[in-house]
Amino acid sequence: MKEYIRITTFSKDKKTVARISTEVIKEKYAASTHIDKVLSSYWWDGKVEDTQEYRLEIITRKDKEDIIVQTIKLIHDYDVPEIQLDIHETQNEDIKKWIDDIVNESNDITDKNNEL
Amino acid sequence: MKEYIRITTFSKDKKTVARISTEVIKEKYAASTHIDKVLSSYWWDGKVEDTQEYRLEIITRKDKEDIIVQTIKLIHDYDVPEIQLDIHETQNEDIKKWIDDIVNESNDITDKNNEL
Amino acid sequence: MKEYIRITTFSKDKKTVARISTEVIKEKYAASTHIDKVLSSYWWDGKVEDTQEYRLEIITRKDKEDIIVQTIKLIHDYDVPEIQLDIHETQNEDIKKWIDDIVNESNDITDKNNEL
Repeated sequence: MKEYIRITTFSKDKKTVARISTEVIKEKYAASTHIDKVLSSYWWDGKVEDTQEYRLEIITRKDKEDIIVQTIKLIHDYDVPEIQLDIHETQNEDIKKWIDDIVNESNDITDKNNEL
Repeated sequence: MKEYIRITTFSKDKKTVARISTEVIKEKYAASTHIDKVLSSYWWDGKVEDTQEYRLEIITRKDKEDIIVQTIKLIHDYDVPEIQLDIHETQNEDIKKWIDDIVNESNDITDKNNEL
Repeated sequence: MKEYIRITTFSKDKKTVARISTEVIKEKYAASTHIDKVLSSYWWDGKVEDTQEYRLEIITRKDKEDIIVQTIKLIHDYDVPEIQLDIHETQNEDIKKWIDDIVNESNDITDKNNEL
């Protein structure tokens, strides 16, 4: 059974989340992304940071997890970006087909390995 | 064990998400809903759409999933609406009781079948 | 295997969610928190309430669940606050280490019991 996932990351820099979003969509690693703003607090370097961040949610299929995590790490401006993965379900078969149609066209290393 | 879920959908049209929210609350299919705004990117019809959408989260019990998915499909203005389902847990017994009290009063087809 | 979680609560009162956020971060029960605004509808006291709320997401490790639920109940201005728990995964080992480094320094009752 195919699993569908949501991958979430955060950055203070709007351009960073926009670049990650554009890349995963352009390469068809994901069918859709959603960005909004949050007020974040977190420990970093022994101090509490209170700052506005942009939250990016990436909706895709489980087999695209690795390439998306790699893409986030490559583009992200943080040394240690938060990357959360939630497995979700859907009863909407049309949406599964829509996600499949898109990500099946992507051309990542995982796909290439599967073809061997 | 009863399961508690979050169902999420998105639309460009604020009235659409408001109508779905009003319907699932009015009919007591759900105990609460939350709406916010996101910037979305997605593939549709061979092109990337970048657009503002409204995100609707519906908090309810697993046995209301079918009636809520039906309600979303009926009211939604998209041909293929994104419908995500997350199962969540809670340690707050009072909230489970609150959700149960509300959705037990709803009168959907699933309930009617269960009564037979 | 350690599990990593997201705990979500809502309040109309910005100060309430800020106080909960400050407390769980200060005490190192959590590594990070995120706050945003939503438009909520819910049944309360036999009526539907439509109101703006602040949503607080707390990112932490599963063993901090109890102390965080206690902290929310203690500080929250609602009699029955919504408290949702989602278990999420991460492929980012650095983030697990970051969360572990922070919450391992916290000093809650659960930790004290574990030391006995």
